[in-house]
Amino acid sequence: MSMSKPLMLKGRVIGGGKEPLICLPLVARTEAGLLAELAVVMGKQPDLIEWRVDFFEGIADTAKVVALGLQLRSMANGVPIIFTRRSIREGGEAIAITETQVLALYCAVSAAGCADFYDYELSSDPAEFKAALTAVHLGGGQLIASYHNFQQTPPAAELLAKFAAMEAAGADVVKIAVMPQQIEDVLTLLSATLEANQRIKQPIISMSMGPLGSLSRLFGYACGSSVTFAAGEKASAPGQLPIEDIRVVQAVLRRVLAG
Amino acid sequence: MSMSKPLMLKGRVIGGGKEPLICLPLVARTEAGLLAELAVVMGKQPDLIEWRVDFFEGIADTAKVVALGLQLRSMANGVPIIFTRRSIREGGEAIAITETQVLALYCAVSAAGCADFYDYELSSDPAEFKAALTAVHLGGGQLIASYHNFQQTPPAAELLAKFAAMEAAGADVVKIAVMPQQIEDVLTLLSATLEANQRIKQPIISMSMGPLGSLSRLFGYACGSSVTFAAGEKASAPGQLPIEDIRVVQAVLRRVLAG
Repeated sequence: MSMSKPLMLKGRVIGGGKEPLICLPLVARTEAGLLAELAVVMGKQPDLIEWRVDFFEGIADTAKVVALGLQLRSMANGVPIIFTRRSIREGGEAIAITETQVLALYCAVSAAGCADFYDYELSSDPAEFKAALTAVHLGGGQLIASYHNFQQTPPAAELLAKFAAMEAAGADVVKIAVMPQQIEDVLTLLSATLEANQRIKQPIISMSMGPLGSLSRLFGYACGSSVTFAAGEKASAPGQLPIEDIRVVQAVLRRVLAG
Repeated sequence: MSMSKPLMLKGRVIGGGKEPLICLPLVARTEAGLLAELAVVMGKQPDLIEWRVDFFEGIADTAKVVALGLQLRSMANGVPIIFTRRSIREGGEAIAITETQVLALYCAVSAAGCADFYDYELSSDPAEFKAALTAVHLGGGQLIASYHNFQQTPPAAELLAKFAAMEAAGADVVKIAVMPQQIEDVLTLLSATLEANQRIKQPIISMSMGPLGSLSRLFGYACGSSVTFAAGEKASAPGQLPIEDIRVVQAVLRRVLAG
């Protein structure tokens, strides 16, 4: 039973139709740390790997990021990679470069083909967003437009407007991660995901964060979220579960949903 | 983290605050079958046991039902029992007695103290409902007012009106089970449960049925449903999971929701 849209790569469905795809993050600060973390993460057999480059202490050295990106890609052995600089504004780490330099980094990394997907925030300067999209597409990659809110869950109408804006901006995949203050907010995120999945053509990645939100990390795919982020060696956001826990619950849900 | 209201029995919280309580049904047709089924069910250590008396071929023999009820209660060794005649109208079995005789059966069974909870449908004749409530209370039991819809999920406002009507009718516990036609309907049931839990004082038991609805059997307690019905030896309604599957998922959720 397909409840979410597939992510495609070179004409093939990632994960062979498995729902949801499980993405593990890399959050080490050093080159050696990242290589070691990737080795651990690979042992957990994720469907996707996200390099959170805002954690990397060498982010200001473009050549180093590109070389390391290629090395990680090679080690990932075909597991698709998401390249992500998360801004402080949306829950990321402080970095030593400007927004313009971040855009240049995305251009260099995508030209070198370090990743398959590139996460770029919808709240970026629109001209920079457009430039990033062009660069990613020129490099043969796909752009994930993202929106994060670590304080609260906006109303469903606002979430739907974000999804629509991402579609209008030309994103290949759209992503929303929001913090619930009460369980109602988790249902709001799930409802908005369901609705957006009918309205827009792009695959959706959505999640509610924190302990309550972790429910959405387990069964959000039934409402149309194509990917769930789990903790690999470390979590990159609040509420991420160990991948083993997700797999245990998925095994039950697969049987159950099949009727 | 308490997300649902506790069920109380003789001043004590059933299950010691565990969420959700797991109820296993007895659906055998014969006395020997019921005794054997209860032995199997007891091995699975449920928090509650429901005797679906509409399956019992001896339902027309009040003395036999009472004697068997007392025997089952004794074998249940303190695990609280729900006595339930489900009508055909709401998904139950065809029986050989009239509605008036069903009411008389409830009176006899509750006077004998065969059970702790008695499920009576809200759609019953109001005078009969009131008589059943009085009889159950005289016998020291609690009445679960219930509403089932095996075709569809009414809108949230209608579900809230049902819960309110159950409260107004004097029920001790309120129960709604509805069939989803799409995943949106599962969210509707969960939202209505959340909302009702704030509006009324009674513990709520709610579920969405069938394969899609089984999500609510796993996660519904986070939205305020105090009890989930699982399959014991056999399922009594569509979408019931094996109790082992529910326990596996609960173990993950307990860790996750604790943060």
